[in-house]
Amino acid sequence: MNLTCKILQAHLMSGELRPGSEIGIRIDQTLTQDATGTMAYLQFEAMGLPRVRTKLSVSYIDHNMLQTGFENADDHRYLQSVGQKYGIVFSRPGNGICHQVHRERFAVPAQTLLGSDSHTPTCGGLGMLAIGAGGLDVAVAMAGEPYFIPMPKVLGVRLTGTLQPWCSGKDVILEMLRRLTVKGGTGRIVEYTGPGVASLSVSHRFTITNMGAELGATTSVFPSDEVTHRFLAAQGREGDWVPLAADPDATYDETVEIDLDTLEPLTACPSSPDNVVSVRAVAGTPVVQVCIGSCTNSSYEDLATAALLLRGRRVHPNVSMTVTPGSKQVFEMIVRDGYFADLIAAGCRILESACGPCIGMGQAPPTGGVSVRSFNRNFKGRSGTADDLVYLASPEVCVACALTGEITDPRTLGIDPIAMATPGQFLINDNMLVFPPADGKDVEVLRGPNIKPVPLGEPPTATLEAPVLLKLGDNISTDHIMPAGAKVLPLRSNIPAIAEFVFMRVDPTFPERARAAGPSLVVGGSNYGQGSSREHAALAPMYLGVRAVIVKSFARIHRANLINFGILPLTFADEADHDGVDQGDQLRLEGIAEGLTTGHFTVANLTKGTNFRADAQLTEREREVILAGGLLNKIKSEKTETAAV
Amino acid sequence: MNLTCKILQAHLMSGELRPGSEIGIRIDQTLTQDATGTMAYLQFEAMGLPRVRTKLSVSYIDHNMLQTGFENADDHRYLQSVGQKYGIVFSRPGNGICHQVHRERFAVPAQTLLGSDSHTPTCGGLGMLAIGAGGLDVAVAMAGEPYFIPMPKVLGVRLTGTLQPWCSGKDVILEMLRRLTVKGGTGRIVEYTGPGVASLSVSHRFTITNMGAELGATTSVFPSDEVTHRFLAAQGREGDWVPLAADPDATYDETVEIDLDTLEPLTACPSSPDNVVSVRAVAGTPVVQVCIGSCTNSSYEDLATAALLLRGRRVHPNVSMTVTPGSKQVFEMIVRDGYFADLIAAGCRILESACGPCIGMGQAPPTGGVSVRSFNRNFKGRSGTADDLVYLASPEVCVACALTGEITDPRTLGIDPIAMATPGQFLINDNMLVFPPADGKDVEVLRGPNIKPVPLGEPPTATLEAPVLLKLGDNISTDHIMPAGAKVLPLRSNIPAIAEFVFMRVDPTFPERARAAGPSLVVGGSNYGQGSSREHAALAPMYLGVRAVIVKSFARIHRANLINFGILPLTFADEADHDGVDQGDQLRLEGIAEGLTTGHFTVANLTKGTNFRADAQLTEREREVILAGGLLNKIKSEKTETAAV
Repeated sequence: MNLTCKILQAHLMSGELRPGSEIGIRIDQTLTQDATGTMAYLQFEAMGLPRVRTKLSVSYIDHNMLQTGFENADDHRYLQSVGQKYGIVFSRPGNGICHQVHRERFAVPAQTLLGSDSHTPTCGGLGMLAIGAGGLDVAVAMAGEPYFIPMPKVLGVRLTGTLQPWCSGKDVILEMLRRLTVKGGTGRIVEYTGPGVASLSVSHRFTITNMGAELGATTSVFPSDEVTHRFLAAQGREGDWVPLAADPDATYDETVEIDLDTLEPLTACPSSPDNVVSVRAVAGTPVVQVCIGSCTNSSYEDLATAALLLRGRRVHPNVSMTVTPGSKQVFEMIVRDGYFADLIAAGCRILESACGPCIGMGQAPPTGGVSVRSFNRNFKGRSGTADDLVYLASPEVCVACALTGEITDPRTLGIDPIAMATPGQFLINDNMLVFPPADGKDVEVLRGPNIKPVPLGEPPTATLEAPVLLKLGDNISTDHIMPAGAKVLPLRSNIPAIAEFVFMRVDPTFPERARAAGPSLVVGGSNYGQGSSREHAALAPMYLGVRAVIVKSFARIHRANLINFGILPLTFADEADHDGVDQGDQLRLEGIAEGLTTGHFTVANLTKGTNFRADAQLTEREREVILAGGLLNKIKSEKTETAAV
Repeated sequence: MNLTCKILQAHLMSGELRPGSEIGIRIDQTLTQDATGTMAYLQFEAMGLPRVRTKLSVSYIDHNMLQTGFENADDHRYLQSVGQKYGIVFSRPGNGICHQVHRERFAVPAQTLLGSDSHTPTCGGLGMLAIGAGGLDVAVAMAGEPYFIPMPKVLGVRLTGTLQPWCSGKDVILEMLRRLTVKGGTGRIVEYTGPGVASLSVSHRFTITNMGAELGATTSVFPSDEVTHRFLAAQGREGDWVPLAADPDATYDETVEIDLDTLEPLTACPSSPDNVVSVRAVAGTPVVQVCIGSCTNSSYEDLATAALLLRGRRVHPNVSMTVTPGSKQVFEMIVRDGYFADLIAAGCRILESACGPCIGMGQAPPTGGVSVRSFNRNFKGRSGTADDLVYLASPEVCVACALTGEITDPRTLGIDPIAMATPGQFLINDNMLVFPPADGKDVEVLRGPNIKPVPLGEPPTATLEAPVLLKLGDNISTDHIMPAGAKVLPLRSNIPAIAEFVFMRVDPTFPERARAAGPSLVVGGSNYGQGSSREHAALAPMYLGVRAVIVKSFARIHRANLINFGILPLTFADEADHDGVDQGDQLRLEGIAEGLTTGHFTVANLTKGTNFRADAQLTEREREVILAGGLLNKIKSEKTETAAV
């Protein structure tokens, strides 16, 4: 048995571990961040339970930290108070990025974690099965219900050799992206095995599992071994350690092999994480910004390494370099160990411990300027600058670029590489965690004026006749559908307001046209909805009247979010039919109830006078959700039924 | 002779030192920041000189540092390149707040400094005559031309006694504001004298001169004494020191006496810096945010004191506390000296070295929540939250509030006060200053697409008939006229775009109504235009068609800015006539050319059928500027005339 199946088996509440079959698994822990958390907790509140039913639920603040208006601070107060009431640990703004703090203080090997952030798989770095999902799915998990997914294939990645100087976990995952693309992990859990695993520190492992999200994978997971043991002990959590590994004769649905000896420094060129080449290949490109940070690369080892490379040197005068510590623990430790002063001395700009520029929350680069970042995504415009040119690379490559003002293979710097060991003892100070009282029933939940109720979907009509409001190509990300960034993120608690930004970067007329159209459709290509877990990419289109999305294929979390909010997730039976539909075409789907049962729909293109088939392979549970007009409606009607009995 | 007159006399190029008479003074140094600098350098470029003619000109980046879009980074690149071309030192983003860095590295006793920021008087703390002005005035000074002001009265403030434990320079200036109000310094230079001066560290002195801007004073100045000497020596600039003091028999136009022994911790309550009470009087008020930083209170001593008070303690769980180091020097030193780790450990949020929340650049407090800040202004909405409740106080009071979660007199904490000495040696590392080459003529100036040309005014018509678009009361600040904050500041280089926000918080319909009206008027009360030096508060209304402003009295810098952009700055001859004008009234001024000469205008209120007199006491120079339609027009026509000869 492989490691993935061991954890799944131990948490299986329904279904069987056969790829494609729907399984329901017990969720031990949940996490949310503030850009998805408010909706998740509003939805949890709507379920009427007195307290969460997980072993542990944590609410982090790491996204909306610039606070350019009252909205974010109001959200923070809501999240703190709702956490006190329902038994959720609150991680205060400034305590760090959810995935960094969670791995430091809470992640437990062999347990399951569901998080309303697409990089939740980070904690797979220590043998946890950690999955990203929409906020409503997380709310349901907090209510103690199983989390349902189609059983993924398990992709075994056999690592051999050891990382060479100047190479890191970042290069491992960039190599995976180079080989498999951003669609390569769809419907898969990536499990790392082989003799190369033992040579990778937890920090490398976390970078790899973190950015497995960019493969489209359900999650990624490493064994829990002696390296994991030492990390947990150094965090004062030795008791949380359990050993966990695949059986020696474990089988995988698919396998890949990476020889760590052969890796060299890599970078993902603009504007997709799988546009990967060697740093050598693009060396010499002028650079105006360098950013180190994000949940991918802002560990103690990452920042200490950057500091040592910068010690006694100076950031190039044409480069604006930012550093964002991943957590309060990282921050305080690099200060006390003397590394932080080097970063300041060299001319780095120090940003608060938060997601920061990775989500476009500040530090937008200049027009047409190249920015090299240790982050995980470089989708066009995500940085806040429409014509950005963002490269993704390791902290070591970032520093090399900052020193020279151009893309630079660090092996050509003529300085010694740094091999930073994991600390034997981390500095533990949890005073920015606010733990809930044993009984929260008297806690008043504080709601600011920007916090609006969650809109509810509608059960499908018998027939859907609606125009194609937008026709799109492949790899449309949630950043295309529902942009993040400093201007939009503060509205995450207010669907009517944020809906005005749906498809903003693709077609700013979309919201107006959608409101005018009434029910509407969107057509897309393959891997539709890749990227973030944000349910707003389903919720806000639903609010604007989108009733169905017809695409070649979906990214997993986004498809689940569409169903959760009652939007029909259809795929072209013949992908070639994508060419036969144009924006503005009027489509007609008849017999929707029947189609939901058979999984097949005939779509009439009234404008073209043609027909094509679209499919929706729904589980019984998914069908019920769609028929109820979304999961919240379904839960509410079940509650009413229960109450009536 | 008092100290003020000594410096003025040494720099006098025209006029005489008689209160009210216009003087022209030679400017030794200039500074700009990025929110006013782009306009200033565009204006300097328009003058066609190859290089600045000052002893020193420095261009700082400290305002637009969040970078939520491409605009700011583009501005930074413009400012760096234009500085290289014209001989201006560029202080990179991250190097610190202009007034903090300037005092550390550049300010020189007995010299003059003109800065396009209203808190430029900060450097008066070491005996410099430092004045805030609009960007165009700074551009003219960079061209080597004199700076013109009506000779202010000199207000002597005699300090006796010594500061008691828990009291600081902040309490001295809050006491001044309590006594004199935000109008009390108008038309005055505040000169500190007496035996109490010697007991004040430079850090206290800088806080006092900095916030003299809130008195409406032209500037504030301290003697250059042994304390100054030690500070400059500790900055490696002993050679810049000269002793400077008022003569023993110096006389002052007015005098005030403050006994430092009697001061207690004070705070300015919402929403004016002169709404000052003892901290005791408002103790117990719940606090949700505390912010330490800004050009007023983010020195080494301020932050080290805060750190020692927080050492081993914890920020109250209901308080979000931010700390913003004033400069790279302060930042690196508090890190290396071990104080910074205490701030992180206690749960502070660490913001980049910049103006930050003081200008509403992030950290907007929650709806209706009390924020206690070590800053200089608390005008309603300046924080980014419309219904904010901002208190101003010393860092010591701020920490006390952060520890308890309510407004707290630190004397009641039961902990020992800190007496932090000025370091004997500052850490000097100027690697974030970019010095210009000896010859910049081949430097290419980089202009982003948001950088638009400066609009030009128009010469006045013979008769002005126009509606009163807006009628306002007393103490209208530049934050009312042309708001700052995270959403508006990035547009500072683009007048057509920023004009859409004129009077946004007072009447959001103003820009639309102004464009519809054509020429228009604004009516206000006393101290109109207090606050910032931003010339955008004149330039953007001019762009929208405002041709005259009639008020009871003007704040100095704003009046100069109105003239610089060709807007008539009129005052009611009889303040009671303010009551006789309503918004929407159609007014008519005839014989404008004659009125400019006599200084008297008869204004016909066509709507009411009444008449009143308005005055404009203009100097010959000011009259010429108005007649040219603004200073840029005047300079351009002089250049053309010179070329024709």
